[in-house]
Amino acid sequence: MANDIFILTESELRKAVRLDMEAIDVVEQAFAALGTGKVIMPPILSMAIPEANGEVDVKTAYIPGFDGFAIKVSPGFFDNPKLGLPSLNGLMILFSARTGLVEALLLDNGYLTDVRTAAAGAVAARHLAPATVQTAGVMGTGVQARLQIAAAHLVRPFSRVLVWGRDARKAQSCARDLAANLGIEAHAEADPARLVAESQLVVTTTPAEEPILKAEWLHPGLHITAMGSDQEGKNEIDPKAIAAVDLYVADRASQCEKLGELRTAIAAGQWKGGQPRELGAIVQGQPGRTDEAQITLCDLTGTGAQDTAIATHALSAARAAGAGRVIES
Amino acid sequence: MANDIFILTESELRKAVRLDMEAIDVVEQAFAALGTGKVIMPPILSMAIPEANGEVDVKTAYIPGFDGFAIKVSPGFFDNPKLGLPSLNGLMILFSARTGLVEALLLDNGYLTDVRTAAAGAVAARHLAPATVQTAGVMGTGVQARLQIAAAHLVRPFSRVLVWGRDARKAQSCARDLAANLGIEAHAEADPARLVAESQLVVTTTPAEEPILKAEWLHPGLHITAMGSDQEGKNEIDPKAIAAVDLYVADRASQCEKLGELRTAIAAGQWKGGQPRELGAIVQGQPGRTDEAQITLCDLTGTGAQDTAIATHALSAARAAGAGRVIES
Repeated sequence: MANDIFILTESELRKAVRLDMEAIDVVEQAFAALGTGKVIMPPILSMAIPEANGEVDVKTAYIPGFDGFAIKVSPGFFDNPKLGLPSLNGLMILFSARTGLVEALLLDNGYLTDVRTAAAGAVAARHLAPATVQTAGVMGTGVQARLQIAAAHLVRPFSRVLVWGRDARKAQSCARDLAANLGIEAHAEADPARLVAESQLVVTTTPAEEPILKAEWLHPGLHITAMGSDQEGKNEIDPKAIAAVDLYVADRASQCEKLGELRTAIAAGQWKGGQPRELGAIVQGQPGRTDEAQITLCDLTGTGAQDTAIATHALSAARAAGAGRVIES
Repeated sequence: MANDIFILTESELRKAVRLDMEAIDVVEQAFAALGTGKVIMPPILSMAIPEANGEVDVKTAYIPGFDGFAIKVSPGFFDNPKLGLPSLNGLMILFSARTGLVEALLLDNGYLTDVRTAAAGAVAARHLAPATVQTAGVMGTGVQARLQIAAAHLVRPFSRVLVWGRDARKAQSCARDLAANLGIEAHAEADPARLVAESQLVVTTTPAEEPILKAEWLHPGLHITAMGSDQEGKNEIDPKAIAAVDLYVADRASQCEKLGELRTAIAAGQWKGGQPRELGAIVQGQPGRTDEAQITLCDLTGTGAQDTAIATHALSAARAAGAGRVIES
């Protein structure tokens, strides 16, 4: 049985898919679909390989109305930097939702995950941040710190960004990059309490295992997107802050209670909110922020639905650009 | 980060990897590793897509001592034959077990699964069938009926094979193929009771949801390999037969109790055996068949360890044959 498979490499995907409003909109569609309850999204398959200080996660989701579904494989091997290799890699495979045949291999080394993760932050900001954001703050100084702020800036065009990190030089470097890329004022801020005090939108992007954002720093008119915790053992937000916000929103409740900030809040006895509201339900019209003074928080663990959405978008963008090659399997 | 990825198509894999003693031995190594308890094998990720009468399964396993680990994606879309397409497809991705980088994409459309599944039947026959098998019987008339008998014949060179199927013409066609391929006597047998009575080794290879092999047909000196049931709802073997055999062996107990014949036996209250023995433990030296008159049964649901073993073997065989192409991701 001959079947044509489209193969795209990381460099081709970087050219064809950008973190732009189109990417944000396609990821918002994924959340809208999640909000209908009709998405089929099994639990994440996860395998740790302690001998190699590695792990691998597999995510997937079927979204009615999308022609394909993606299966994403994300290895993280944390001794790789010693070998001069990146810790995170991986690929997405796009299958026809009608026949199950492989349609495309997206050899993105994690690039599409970076884009869809940042795009989810923008969806959260679009629906939950105050209408006017003058200053945004980011905790963390890596790839997602840069991308989350770039994505949020598309939906809330703030004029200033503050960057906090444990390593002051990395925070300065991140601020310089953001200033250059977004054409806005950007500073490193050594005091995380001051960063939160001066921001209307804060994104946490670290692999922290102890809270880096304290409940006593919350203030009216603040939105927080916490995207760092995607595994048991990670925790960025003080459990008391989860209890104190006016509205806590999960990307997927069943994932957040195991892998997100909600997990720690439940473990600390701080969660009294019952079944948490999901971002998809808010995209579908359930109440999000209802006044400018509220404090909101969105807990992002990363969903297979986002992967299916970005993979579908990537294939169509790459085809339109004439990129990639076909092999007959 | 440039990373060279080796790509192999189904036709290249069919040339490089055969169902031979080498494939059986590599799959036996996977079971031996499972028997040490050191294999890391997470539960199968499974997603049903009822709208398309489809499903997709993802399996993986890390085996200490193997350079790579495979992630296998197996879609089954059961309306495909109406479109002139095969129901089963899929691919394997081989990752470095040291860095998590993608090493090879094996676009096998399920071929390597066919081989590793039949090879597991041969491992079961090698350790559990009577030393001398004159007649083998197979229930079912599809690809696995042919491959299981071919694999079993490598380890127990019987001179006669009987084939039963619901469709007599398919049984005749399967028997003709087996006679031609193995150079032995082969007949269709319309009466499954007689097939079992005349065989020392029986392999069941059907998607049956009601038992096709009855407890009252068991006889001394019989070994049964049941490989059809790999999902809830499938059942080939009378639960009373599971209770009646001298030795029941699971490929993986945790899978068989959910997906294999063991599931139905437990549900029917027929399982009194406690923690079942696993094939890997027998490969490692725990008792299997201890006399020729015993009745043994091996329940195969298919393990990620077999996938890692066959994918590693396939890459090395294809490289040795100079097959495939490399792309830089």
